[in-house]
Amino acid sequence: MKTPKISEAVVKRLPIYLRFLTDLYQQNGLTVSSSDLGQKLNMNPAQIRKDLACFGEFGKKGIGYDVPYLIENIKHILNLQHKMPIVLIGAGNLGRALCNYQVYFQDQMNLCAVFDSSDEKVGEQINHLQVEPISKMKAIISEHKVRMAIIAVPAIAAQNVANLLVDSGIRGILNFAPTILHVPDSIRVHYVDFTTELQSLAFYLQTNLSGGEQFD
Amino acid sequence: MKTPKISEAVVKRLPIYLRFLTDLYQQNGLTVSSSDLGQKLNMNPAQIRKDLACFGEFGKKGIGYDVPYLIENIKHILNLQHKMPIVLIGAGNLGRALCNYQVYFQDQMNLCAVFDSSDEKVGEQINHLQVEPISKMKAIISEHKVRMAIIAVPAIAAQNVANLLVDSGIRGILNFAPTILHVPDSIRVHYVDFTTELQSLAFYLQTNLSGGEQFD
Repeated sequence: MKTPKISEAVVKRLPIYLRFLTDLYQQNGLTVSSSDLGQKLNMNPAQIRKDLACFGEFGKKGIGYDVPYLIENIKHILNLQHKMPIVLIGAGNLGRALCNYQVYFQDQMNLCAVFDSSDEKVGEQINHLQVEPISKMKAIISEHKVRMAIIAVPAIAAQNVANLLVDSGIRGILNFAPTILHVPDSIRVHYVDFTTELQSLAFYLQTNLSGGEQFD
Repeated sequence: MKTPKISEAVVKRLPIYLRFLTDLYQQNGLTVSSSDLGQKLNMNPAQIRKDLACFGEFGKKGIGYDVPYLIENIKHILNLQHKMPIVLIGAGNLGRALCNYQVYFQDQMNLCAVFDSSDEKVGEQINHLQVEPISKMKAIISEHKVRMAIIAVPAIAAQNVANLLVDSGIRGILNFAPTILHVPDSIRVHYVDFTTELQSLAFYLQTNLSGGEQFD
């Protein structure tokens, strides 16, 4: 199947649908309507129908969407049919937290190594993994054919780590360090930046914005 | 100053400008051009000029933007002139990591309490704070006039925590739990969800999307 051209906004919503549908299916939910989805996910049902229509017709009027069929299709679209190997760089508190969050993505991804530059952390056990030195990164990434990495190191160390990752063949980076990374155009970087999220949230708490002010 | 109506996308970019400008100012940078900003932040200079133009004229042709003036204005727009008190719920690995990230937002925000439901964690010291029991949440939030909270608890506990926060007078929530929260319309929730970020990143690593495919 040729993957259709879809907007970034839709690509960001698909995993939210996938998580909800997977939970629903585990509770034996076999069909779901767009209005149910909308209510549970705080989203507009028309938006949901539009998003899912990008990929062909999965819903039937009056019955709703076939849950397992929709799960399989979203997984296919997101490139998650096979477990994707990923690596994590940074074994501090954030890195440890991310290892624990693995329960939420273990169906689709396999965290196959954790790296840290600190001699104290190398050799430590985090869940089933032993922290590896940065010097082994290239070999391990190559061995497991890893293309995706998570950076959870301090801002000051992040660019160096990114350079090493690119040099090791990584093509996608999820960056938690609060800094902008400079990488070749062929490498995709997504940012998770809670300091900027906090600050943009502050904007919406101004008194003169309450009372029905609308944003687009 | 009446805050102008600005799009969510601009509100999310302002903290990124603010962080870069603050770093620059600490290194004695007093002026900056939109092309410099664009290069350092991997952004289109025309986009930056357009974003900053929303708030009036801070730049001069041929000289660039006055850095301290721009910092003050962005802080004003984001409602960050005075340190905003915030609370954190969840003292696990993620909560601890967030406490350490405080260095990145301590100029604008003051983390004044950390809460946890576990008897084992209550009383533990994290940086300068002692973990408090959930039973004290309402009193502490009221005492410090807190309006913003961070949720860093497991998904299954998040809705209960959100209900308590709303009941305590919180108006903005940054939610790290991988679940959708249901709160009154007057409450603003921002999500930081790395499992969905990972999955949307996977989408862009598909072989048939490489080679100049464009997204909007």
